[in-house]
Amino acid sequence: MGSQGVANENNSVRLNASETKGKTITCKAAVAYGPGEPFVVEQIHVKPPQKLEVRIKILYTSICHTDLSGWLGENEAQRAYPRIFGHEASGIVESVGEGVKDIEEGDIVVPIFNGECGNCSYCKSEKTNMCESFGVNPMKKVMGNDGTSRFSTIDGKPIFHFLNTSTFVEYTVVDSACVVKLHHDLSHSLKKLTLISCGISTGVGAAWNTANVHSGSSVAVFGLGAVGLAVAEGARARGASKIIGVDINPDKFIKAQAMGITDFINPRDEERPVHERIKEISGGGVDYSFECAGNLNVLREAFLSAHQGWGLTVILGIHSTPELLPIHPMELFDGRRIIGSVFGGFKGKTQLPHFARECIHGVVRLDNFISHELPFEEINKAFDLLTNGKSLRCILNM
Amino acid sequence: MGSQGVANENNSVRLNASETKGKTITCKAAVAYGPGEPFVVEQIHVKPPQKLEVRIKILYTSICHTDLSGWLGENEAQRAYPRIFGHEASGIVESVGEGVKDIEEGDIVVPIFNGECGNCSYCKSEKTNMCESFGVNPMKKVMGNDGTSRFSTIDGKPIFHFLNTSTFVEYTVVDSACVVKLHHDLSHSLKKLTLISCGISTGVGAAWNTANVHSGSSVAVFGLGAVGLAVAEGARARGASKIIGVDINPDKFIKAQAMGITDFINPRDEERPVHERIKEISGGGVDYSFECAGNLNVLREAFLSAHQGWGLTVILGIHSTPELLPIHPMELFDGRRIIGSVFGGFKGKTQLPHFARECIHGVVRLDNFISHELPFEEINKAFDLLTNGKSLRCILNM
Repeated sequence: MGSQGVANENNSVRLNASETKGKTITCKAAVAYGPGEPFVVEQIHVKPPQKLEVRIKILYTSICHTDLSGWLGENEAQRAYPRIFGHEASGIVESVGEGVKDIEEGDIVVPIFNGECGNCSYCKSEKTNMCESFGVNPMKKVMGNDGTSRFSTIDGKPIFHFLNTSTFVEYTVVDSACVVKLHHDLSHSLKKLTLISCGISTGVGAAWNTANVHSGSSVAVFGLGAVGLAVAEGARARGASKIIGVDINPDKFIKAQAMGITDFINPRDEERPVHERIKEISGGGVDYSFECAGNLNVLREAFLSAHQGWGLTVILGIHSTPELLPIHPMELFDGRRIIGSVFGGFKGKTQLPHFARECIHGVVRLDNFISHELPFEEINKAFDLLTNGKSLRCILNM
Repeated sequence: MGSQGVANENNSVRLNASETKGKTITCKAAVAYGPGEPFVVEQIHVKPPQKLEVRIKILYTSICHTDLSGWLGENEAQRAYPRIFGHEASGIVESVGEGVKDIEEGDIVVPIFNGECGNCSYCKSEKTNMCESFGVNPMKKVMGNDGTSRFSTIDGKPIFHFLNTSTFVEYTVVDSACVVKLHHDLSHSLKKLTLISCGISTGVGAAWNTANVHSGSSVAVFGLGAVGLAVAEGARARGASKIIGVDINPDKFIKAQAMGITDFINPRDEERPVHERIKEISGGGVDYSFECAGNLNVLREAFLSAHQGWGLTVILGIHSTPELLPIHPMELFDGRRIIGSVFGGFKGKTQLPHFARECIHGVVRLDNFISHELPFEEINKAFDLLTNGKSLRCILNM
């Protein structure tokens, strides 16, 4: 598309990269200055991309629980302020650094926190979507090229990066390994495609790639946030005949029903352990259970809900306590399996362009996941909505 | 073969079932009267088989660690005396009970502790070798038909069964679901085929069925008893290019070398954790690691020895402490997987007849596993050999 890109839903967004290329850009960002402190929306400086880096004009960003826990500084070792959070977004490439071959100015893109360099032994293996250089690293806060940040406050203090991405900003700089180019004919759907940057891919991919849910199978999803509902959506798309949703918040059941969840269980309404109820309604246990709550008690229920002999439990939830798996080794002899899933097992650069197309063709219904839309300046309100369980995904309009 | 069976290596064993069929047989057994008490080899009574049961004349039996821990009563809840232990054996069918269709008098057979009824949802699934009715149940001590034992002392006290089998006896009664018929042309190899009744199938099957070890892959085996060596033998047969053996007993390395183990690690000789050494010699970790020691520290080393992204750890060891898996849930996000393997994933009745043939054709070299042979009466000596790590498999000649 050259240096003139168009990516919009209702209004055009035009870039004139010739004015900014190679220069530091001054633009708006939502900066976090301390754990849980309200974001300050202010002007900052964004340096040009270096070797194998890409500068993206963010058009939409949304908020995921990983942003929430990062912002709150739940893991002390990972704290770094001031910082620009955000990792689920879409945008248009403003400029690229030296050596970037697969992406050019004007391309419509989504950033990915779990990169794909294409060259390491992991990227070359069909068995994993890990990447040796650009995998998920919550400790990383600067660019790998030179160990510094591309962001700084107006008075010159560095602002840290987050999760290979940092998208609560009008322009961000990311490694090209963490940028997925989408076909330009999807430019009119870029707002909803924001969601494939993290949450929806994580959930749908866990069902499709990690678990390989089959038609007619039974599924239980523990935790009906956006990721859990995306698992359900992925299972529905694969033809699962029974999709049991488990959550302690009954408000989520209305939304869940629209996603194809066939049975609901609120653990607070049950006198028995949830897995006993699930065994009862699924003929001895489900083929696949998904833990999307980040809670070890829930994890054990998910494990026991899986059918003996072949049931698979997939962990998606983030477990931040030091406690170990609540499973005895001999319990694995019952034939239940448990595995983790990162970014839904998707190799981002290789697979997301096709997945984006499938979403736009309605295989996965992204619209159902957008519960709110707000201007970027109202980011603190968007965080409130997520914290209070009111929003699934709130799209921030840059 | 009718009622006249022949199954021997050097000398013929002939049955004359017409003399015994339908009658109680008086024969020799090695009876355990208390935890760890020396076996008493004495005459006992063996009742005829009931509905869907089979009475087998045991020709050879060997001893596995599960017999050892059962005999020692390591798990108090599973204690039951007097009892006939033993589950690895071969023999010839003396008579069958009502309704047995697939087995007849004179058939050469091996008993299996992990049965296959053929009718339950597990047996009908391709994903598991569990059986709803005849799976491994260490609490079971009587026949399911009537809740009583087929064995009694000369003065009429019942003697308990063990692990669906009980083979330290000249004639045993087992459910037909736990009897695998071998082709009669294998009758001359019945002594060595004793080993497919448990240990060798467990190890080779873990490599073949559970892990599906591929040609050119790297493997680490923790614990070089018969099961661990059978894993190595299975991996060798599949063309694994690196097979690392780990054991604290250096005596085992000589035997292990003959089995195709390419590298040895004695943890006592290492200053670093074993997994670091394994990572070093296997390019970042092995494709498959097998825990055959029943020790949680070993299990963790096995887990960390597997390659990030795709490494699979298979648990074969029996973990009798109440401690849980020494793995943090987030560690599963590194793409390592851990699963259990029971009886090597073999569906006994369906798959062992072919496996027996493969063994006799030399795909798996059973001879290497027979370290000792003793007359049945010297069973206490055979237990000593196993306890002291001197024997791999000691065949007891009935």
